[in-house]
Amino acid sequence: MATAGKVIRCKAAVAWEPNKPLVMEEIEVAPPQANEVRIKIVATGVCHTDLYHLFEGMHKDGFPVVLGHEGAGIVESVGTGVTEFQPGDKVIPLFISQCRECRFCKSPKTNQCVKGWAADRYDVMALEETRLTCKGKKLLQFLGTSTFSEYTVLNQIAVAKIDPAAPLDKVCLLGCGVCTGFGAAVNTAKVTGSTCAVFGLGAVGLAAVMGCKAAGAQRIIAVDINPEKFEKAKVFGATEFVNPKDHSRPISQVLAEMTDGGVDFSLECVGNVGVMRSALESCVKGWGVSVLVGWTDLQDFAARPIQLIAGRTWKGTLFGGFKGKDGVPEMVKAYLDKKVKLDEFITHNMTLDQVNDAVKLMKNGQWCFPLSKVISPLNS
Amino acid sequence: MATAGKVIRCKAAVAWEPNKPLVMEEIEVAPPQANEVRIKIVATGVCHTDLYHLFEGMHKDGFPVVLGHEGAGIVESVGTGVTEFQPGDKVIPLFISQCRECRFCKSPKTNQCVKGWAADRYDVMALEETRLTCKGKKLLQFLGTSTFSEYTVLNQIAVAKIDPAAPLDKVCLLGCGVCTGFGAAVNTAKVTGSTCAVFGLGAVGLAAVMGCKAAGAQRIIAVDINPEKFEKAKVFGATEFVNPKDHSRPISQVLAEMTDGGVDFSLECVGNVGVMRSALESCVKGWGVSVLVGWTDLQDFAARPIQLIAGRTWKGTLFGGFKGKDGVPEMVKAYLDKKVKLDEFITHNMTLDQVNDAVKLMKNGQWCFPLSKVISPLNS
Repeated sequence: MATAGKVIRCKAAVAWEPNKPLVMEEIEVAPPQANEVRIKIVATGVCHTDLYHLFEGMHKDGFPVVLGHEGAGIVESVGTGVTEFQPGDKVIPLFISQCRECRFCKSPKTNQCVKGWAADRYDVMALEETRLTCKGKKLLQFLGTSTFSEYTVLNQIAVAKIDPAAPLDKVCLLGCGVCTGFGAAVNTAKVTGSTCAVFGLGAVGLAAVMGCKAAGAQRIIAVDINPEKFEKAKVFGATEFVNPKDHSRPISQVLAEMTDGGVDFSLECVGNVGVMRSALESCVKGWGVSVLVGWTDLQDFAARPIQLIAGRTWKGTLFGGFKGKDGVPEMVKAYLDKKVKLDEFITHNMTLDQVNDAVKLMKNGQWCFPLSKVISPLNS
Repeated sequence: MATAGKVIRCKAAVAWEPNKPLVMEEIEVAPPQANEVRIKIVATGVCHTDLYHLFEGMHKDGFPVVLGHEGAGIVESVGTGVTEFQPGDKVIPLFISQCRECRFCKSPKTNQCVKGWAADRYDVMALEETRLTCKGKKLLQFLGTSTFSEYTVLNQIAVAKIDPAAPLDKVCLLGCGVCTGFGAAVNTAKVTGSTCAVFGLGAVGLAAVMGCKAAGAQRIIAVDINPEKFEKAKVFGATEFVNPKDHSRPISQVLAEMTDGGVDFSLECVGNVGVMRSALESCVKGWGVSVLVGWTDLQDFAARPIQLIAGRTWKGTLFGGFKGKDGVPEMVKAYLDKKVKLDEFITHNMTLDQVNDAVKLMKNGQWCFPLSKVISPLNS
């Protein structure tokens, strides 16, 4: 392309400091260096983790930053040493890399590539190295990605090539939320034909419901304090609904009564340490498995030792346990084959200029992840 | 036997109230009722859980009580409906029953029989029903067992018949500590040929070391603040030793440096919520598994969500995951076949009259379970 090898000047939503609206700026995107890929972002979702960084995490070393990590786009140009990608390829940026060489990538047990951001800068949630600048300042790349920008640059180990037939304004959701929830049920909890509870009916929770159904769960109890989300959960496979606000007893007790002692699997899709505890306590003793899916890291999660000693297991998941380069194209294919829903997650289509409205809509979802909003920067 | 059908008057160590020495008393042991077995206790270990009840748990509804739950004995008589046991059978009392009928007993995933004490009185740690009385007062049976007595009565679902060749003053240790530690490694953590860390080198910890070795672990790092325990740990298979007091850094960091990121499996054999956290944090991300083996339930255990989200698993074990009627006789056989060590755990042989000395010796072990002491009541 004509832009190859040159700095691209384009629009991006910049978070200059915590707790403030994002600012639309013209930024510079450097050409891809060795092993890097420059991507024209076509669509991006907004995820609670973007908001977490802006309003909760607020790590002083995490700004200025370009947020957004749930995107999809087209390769604009590639750096030296890149053979897997060519200009024009449809791709999804990965916030967990897959180098295929480290002992984690070589193990089937995990998707935690040793080169991933989580290795040592998880509190800052951004790589130190970045290809984005604005007004002479380095802009950090959130989770190594930065999809609230018309262009971004990633190392090739953090890019998944997907089917050219994939509609980017839908499959962008596979860049985070939908894979996270779906994989939490299928890969991490390893749900079997049994009783599940999903706490929080945002995009991640709804995807977890969909994952439980795909894994053959017989009962899927959806839990949320917003009853408006229940109809949507049914679409994804929920069989029962519980609103904790309808009960004066702890929700774990309500679920235990509904299920003769507790659910087999529970998935916390909120990112709240109190809900994490409830989700564990809602599991049946002996074999109950509870998975932390929602993100928070400002407080400890906790429980009484008897909860585990009595036979429960506490796990966690990042990106639903999917190895990105392997898993994302498979999920894209599953969507194209109509085995996985994506369209039903989308509540709004907005332009990049409207990103602060999208953030506001998400914040109003409260308590749990609201549904995804797809922003298509190139329409802006 | 001549005593069948009659009340037996015998000696027992009674804990009349929390935080006080046990008192040797003459107690009455009622004849076994339907489905019950009366057992002449021949030997018993002292376990930290006995001390926990007396000095830490101190639940007001848990006294007066006859402690002791790690015993072995001989059936004296049986109640109606008992066909599995006959007078003269060598047996080990089980603090987790195995009714073979409930959904837990029928599942290979757990040893949590629905009729076990843990179901609803785990904070009191004693069954409401008891066959022991003293001076007109009902004496609770600790964990449903009460082995600090010359005789006790248990429901047949909580008794394991063992090989007649078994030396009771050795195999009594399989009634709790050794099965707990060994099974934690083999059944709960499901250790494979890998790197393990065992926190706390009391009887349970040493048994965990032995379990790790039996499961094929290549490196077994033994952790204790008492360096005198290290020699003993070697006997059971430990390959390396770490004393947290020798380091100013957190022990999880020390272990991470020794193991290129953390151990594959860690076993907390102390019963301390701070150590539980360290044990989790000592595991490698991606696939590390940490198991709570030591007992405490007075405080929450806690960690940062990233610990699990990064791919670690937190589990717990009660009696090492062994179903008692199945597992205990197998472990007795393994001992007779010299596949499992027991003699090496025993530091003192004492009489029931000396039980307060035994308690003192154990308390002085501090921080972690000290080695077991075998008390032989019938020699008293």
